Amino acid sequence: MSQPVIIFDPSPRSRELIFSAEDWKRLNSLGRVISHEGAGRMDDALVDEYLPQASLIIGQTDLPAERLERAEPLRAIINVEGNFYPNVDYKIAFARGIRVLGIGPAFSLPVAEMALGMAIDAARGITRADRAFRAGREGYGKADNAGSFLLTGADMGFVGFGHLGRSLLPLLQPFRPTIRVFDPWVPPGALREHGLVPDSLEGVLSKSKVTFVLAGVTEENYGMIGAEQLALIPGGAAFLLMSRAPIVDWDAFLEASREGRFRAATDVFPQEPVSPDDPVRRHDHMILSAHRAGGIKEAFLRIGEMVADDAGLLLSGLPPARLQSAHPETVARLRSTPGQQHTTETK
Amino acid sequence: MSQPVIIFDPSPRSRELIFSAEDWKRLNSLGRVISHEGAGRMDDALVDEYLPQASLIIGQTDLPAERLERAEPLRAIINVEGNFYPNVDYKIAFARGIRVLGIGPAFSLPVAEMALGMAIDAARGITRADRAFRAGREGYGKADNAGSFLLTGADMGFVGFGHLGRSLLPLLQPFRPTIRVFDPWVPPGALREHGLVPDSLEGVLSKSKVTFVLAGVTEENYGMIGAEQLALIPGGAAFLLMSRAPIVDWDAFLEASREGRFRAATDVFPQEPVSPDDPVRRHDHMILSAHRAGGIKEAFLRIGEMVADDAGLLLSGLPPARLQSAHPETVARLRSTPGQQHTTETK
Amino acid sequence: MSQPVIIFDPSPRSRELIFSAEDWKRLNSLGRVISHEGAGRMDDALVDEYLPQASLIIGQTDLPAERLERAEPLRAIINVEGNFYPNVDYKIAFARGIRVLGIGPAFSLPVAEMALGMAIDAARGITRADRAFRAGREGYGKADNAGSFLLTGADMGFVGFGHLGRSLLPLLQPFRPTIRVFDPWVPPGALREHGLVPDSLEGVLSKSKVTFVLAGVTEENYGMIGAEQLALIPGGAAFLLMSRAPIVDWDAFLEASREGRFRAATDVFPQEPVSPDDPVRRHDHMILSAHRAGGIKEAFLRIGEMVADDAGLLLSGLPPARLQSAHPETVARLRSTPGQQHTTETK
Amino acid sequence: MSQPVIIFDPSPRSRELIFSAEDWKRLNSLGRVISHEGAGRMDDALVDEYLPQASLIIGQTDLPAERLERAEPLRAIINVEGNFYPNVDYKIAFARGIRVLGIGPAFSLPVAEMALGMAIDAARGITRADRAFRAGREGYGKADNAGSFLLTGADMGFVGFGHLGRSLLPLLQPFRPTIRVFDPWVPPGALREHGLVPDSLEGVLSKSKVTFVLAGVTEENYGMIGAEQLALIPGGAAFLLMSRAPIVDWDAFLEASREGRFRAATDVFPQEPVSPDDPVRRHDHMILSAHRAGGIKEAFLRIGEMVADDAGLLLSGLPPARLQSAHPETVARLRSTPGQQHTTETK
Repeated sequence: MSQPVIIFDPSPRSRELIFSAEDWKRLNSLGRVISHEGAGRMDDALVDEYLPQASLIIGQTDLPAERLERAEPLRAIINVEGNFYPNVDYKIAFARGIRVLGIGPAFSLPVAEMALGMAIDAARGITRADRAFRAGREGYGKADNAGSFLLTGADMGFVGFGHLGRSLLPLLQPFRPTIRVFDPWVPPGALREHGLVPDSLEGVLSKSKVTFVLAGVTEENYGMIGAEQLALIPGGAAFLLMSRAPIVDWDAFLEASREGRFRAATDVFPQEPVSPDDPVRRHDHMILSAHRAGGIKEAFLRIGEMVADDAGLLLSGLPPARLQSAHPETVARLRSTPGQQHTTETK
Repeated sequence: MSQPVIIFDPSPRSRELIFSAEDWKRLNSLGRVISHEGAGRMDDALVDEYLPQASLIIGQTDLPAERLERAEPLRAIINVEGNFYPNVDYKIAFARGIRVLGIGPAFSLPVAEMALGMAIDAARGITRADRAFRAGREGYGKADNAGSFLLTGADMGFVGFGHLGRSLLPLLQPFRPTIRVFDPWVPPGALREHGLVPDSLEGVLSKSKVTFVLAGVTEENYGMIGAEQLALIPGGAAFLLMSRAPIVDWDAFLEASREGRFRAATDVFPQEPVSPDDPVRRHDHMILSAHRAGGIKEAFLRIGEMVADDAGLLLSGLPPARLQSAHPETVARLRSTPGQQHTTETK
Repeated sequence: MSQPVIIFDPSPRSRELIFSAEDWKRLNSLGRVISHEGAGRMDDALVDEYLPQASLIIGQTDLPAERLERAEPLRAIINVEGNFYPNVDYKIAFARGIRVLGIGPAFSLPVAEMALGMAIDAARGITRADRAFRAGREGYGKADNAGSFLLTGADMGFVGFGHLGRSLLPLLQPFRPTIRVFDPWVPPGALREHGLVPDSLEGVLSKSKVTFVLAGVTEENYGMIGAEQLALIPGGAAFLLMSRAPIVDWDAFLEASREGRFRAATDVFPQEPVSPDDPVRRHDHMILSAHRAGGIKEAFLRIGEMVADDAGLLLSGLPPARLQSAHPETVARLRSTPGQQHTTETK
Repeated sequence: MSQPVIIFDPSPRSRELIFSAEDWKRLNSLGRVISHEGAGRMDDALVDEYLPQASLIIGQTDLPAERLERAEPLRAIINVEGNFYPNVDYKIAFARGIRVLGIGPAFSLPVAEMALGMAIDAARGITRADRAFRAGREGYGKADNAGSFLLTGADMGFVGFGHLGRSLLPLLQPFRPTIRVFDPWVPPGALREHGLVPDSLEGVLSKSKVTFVLAGVTEENYGMIGAEQLALIPGGAAFLLMSRAPIVDWDAFLEASREGRFRAATDVFPQEPVSPDDPVRRHDHMILSAHRAGGIKEAFLRIGEMVADDAGLLLSGLPPARLQSAHPETVARLRSTPGQQHTTETK
């Protein structure tokens, strides 16, 4: 029997970024890997040559209906970039029983650790005090601790409870917080099972000393947190934007956080790179992070490990155990915009 | 029966700093509080007048042998400043069965949370990346993440395992670290009970991806971490000085951390305030914090709560439950220097 | 627009068992519920009448190809019994994009708590000592504690790491165990992410002081733990059979556990009810539980809560958030036997 | 310089019970150990011979004033039996600055694990169902689960929060309980720091689904839980007596628990051994344990490890780190009765 064919077309990722030598070897032991390396997508001719034999496609190859129809043995499309773009006919893929898999979980732990670090930073003013120190304006001890607060026992809030929230939750448990959650895709009972308190967006924002924005962007939550919502954040509270910029109305966010009424942190921006003269660069009560929360070496290499693991399972006739299955119901509702293009390469 | 007399002589702390209105009321309900407020210590005349009736002394009043001999009903000396100075004849106090109590635990949780925040900051470069962003030099995503690492699964080390280490330990548990500990005052079995791995100072420094210095200063550990020890820290690891500056040889520390061979953070300095032109202000791979880790409002108010609680217990003939009992064996070995004077007011 | 039709055909479950009044009301608010209550399945005529309009089928209704073909708007088949029987043409369901959902998670927490209780019981001889006490043969203190051991720090093993293992894991964390896991469906990297140590079946059995059997039955693991494997269990260790009896070779298990070489507990039996003169009833070093680990009131009512929650999501065009999606790859490999029929009603 | 003298007079413990070969060797490396082995206390002549040179006394040697006065270099009296009896003049010992140390912590973890095991057993009827199974009266699945409940999310209560409560607390955390505590020796703020809710005895008993009695016996709490208090326990709740029998009015306890209005467990009895015809042996809703919770091999050996560790520290001029320091305020208020004599050997 001939060995399975695996199309590997990872751009904009590179093989070296996401595969350790060991995991790459492991993947190659599973079948014949037709690999496109270097910039851009695999040549159409090559795709079309191997498509009829391919059991797995790893990458962001265009897969319109006519291609999927020719991909008879195809079991899974494994996106290694992070967003599901409309260059795949998902409807046909699902009808054909082809798995559509994504790498979301690879970045959730790094982002969760960063979120906790930024929460403590916001609560205690670490970044701001470090800047003051370098400028010779440091205040010692209580002199520069007005408004500093403990995480232990603080009320916290999550906007969104997907895999990112699930990674963050255990890190927060030692602080014994009450955590309120707004997520219209997760029923109250599911939240309560995790010891969380279901609430509205307004409830989360107004009652939390620390709010984490952890939701992916959908058609429904675009710009959901505007001036009116931001005004609900209590004075001195912390608001951390960890997932996607389009969830907030950016102008309103800049305006509301400018004077330091609340403490803010963001890892994402509506346009990246941020313009050199963007006023956000001077926001003294905001922690600025240039889309760095997810894209660390360990996370990228975890992609390759997960892909090799699940490729092995899928080719043995087992379900995937590590990658995230896209849902037919929502794959088309998850939204990514040109402004997010950069984002998706790194997070 | 006359009510107990409580001498309250908190300088350099102030009553307002450490007592909420409620806890102050509670303390006053326990006895007659002779209170000195404002700068400096209580007048000798006032001390000497009330000493023969005092059941508790809360503060840093001079208590040489001749005073202690006159303090017949005295049950406890409650230091609210943070260090045990040689202005008390501890030997006589212990021989008399007078409790000597300190407030160490009030600051251990705030310092522990800060230590975790700084550890994540060091691992991920939060503070440094924020500075770069403000200077227009930010790198997006993986571009600025060389050397960033996860806390999850990292090997960690504690230098010292007292109440600060005990507060930090549960915050680290979700990261499932192996934690090596060097503390000559804590036997190996006691460390193993906490799931910790006993090791030498050299072992801790050389095997840890994140080392937390958490020890108080004693005669034995003064300058214990010098050039030789710092050279053991692996490249790219994080070294966080959270407790007292004299534990490191400061010049060696500055030299070793200058070029960023490892990532550093410090909350303490040998001289505070730090000189305006001290080169540490330009160390790019160090997080600088001006003795801010402990002295937050919640911690100061916790002192008053603890004092009122234990005063109540002691006056009912029960042992204290919240303050830290000084040990006859070590009270004189704990060392504080003029350079630490400032420190002790805030930490 | 007409409201969605929901077919409710729960036998052998009853509505009262799995639905609180509130959740039943909630389900009925989502659409028109065509409900069959009382013994047995819904009449074919009724099924056939409503099938062409049904959006959801809750229950174990026969769904061969010809029925599925007529169920045009069907979005999900929600099994509330616990096993996926071959009375549904799963292949066609998956090809049609119909979700096949199960209730596994409803019972995992009750079984996990019971597993921990039985582990402590086995380690400490609680059940056996209670019997001795009633017979007037109790030994006080150390007199009856030979071989008793602490869970804290013990090496543990899991055979299988599905939703049951995921529920048990956090309950064991305070004991700081090393946990070895054998599960051929879960890749090593996925186990390591949970802090678990991948191992072979032999490794798990031979190195664990406490082994939990937590796997569902598949074609591959039927009778997998036989005499040879049981001989690997160290003397004095505990072996707990929490999931399904057919995973062990029952005769070998009875033989190996008869003399108390290791401590055993089982919640499942190959034939239930167990014959009155079955020798297992006299095994002194075994804890006997008549399929009681899962079937508690809270768990049954959780089924209704989960069903109402996910019905709401599915009818809003969202993916389910609480029930377990069956995998096309494995739904036909999960095995249930006549002997398990009873089982499935209660667990 | 002559080496320190250590008097070792462990009866009713034996050396073999509490010291591993390794720890015994370690103790002997610290000084000259004058050891009495075999039944009964050390001969008076031997005690009197070595007393003037002894730095440590390990055991329950009579130490009235006249002996203590002759024990000039004595630093610590280390009780290895578990109760502080009035055969020591504690007042003089404390005035002399002699440490009085006990082994309480050695047993707290074994008792805590047992308490959790018994709590799950009570909640799920493990012991009772096992008995029924052996009698051929088992009910399968839900048939025998009426009243079974989950620990997860249950309200719990502690009567007493000393070292036993501190060992139990982390084991309960994964169940996310609200835990109410009654302990007049621990101020509310200290409880809140642990995430506990201070309450009255009545509050704890009436609001808890699971109540753990964890307090040592004092003059104040003798018989504190009587008929009136027991009547507050909600129907179907669990009440676990883990520490000392005299805290409950035993007749009232037997009466209240006889019909199974609540689920009970006890590890302690007012008279041990229990009379052969004591009706408690027939209480069907009680788990009976003959003072087995603490006295396991690992705990006994931990005594020796703790003693060797602290002997080393004390002889180096450091404070003890593992044994429990008796408090001058309470050592005389802790009560032990002849009926507890047996108890103290094993727990």
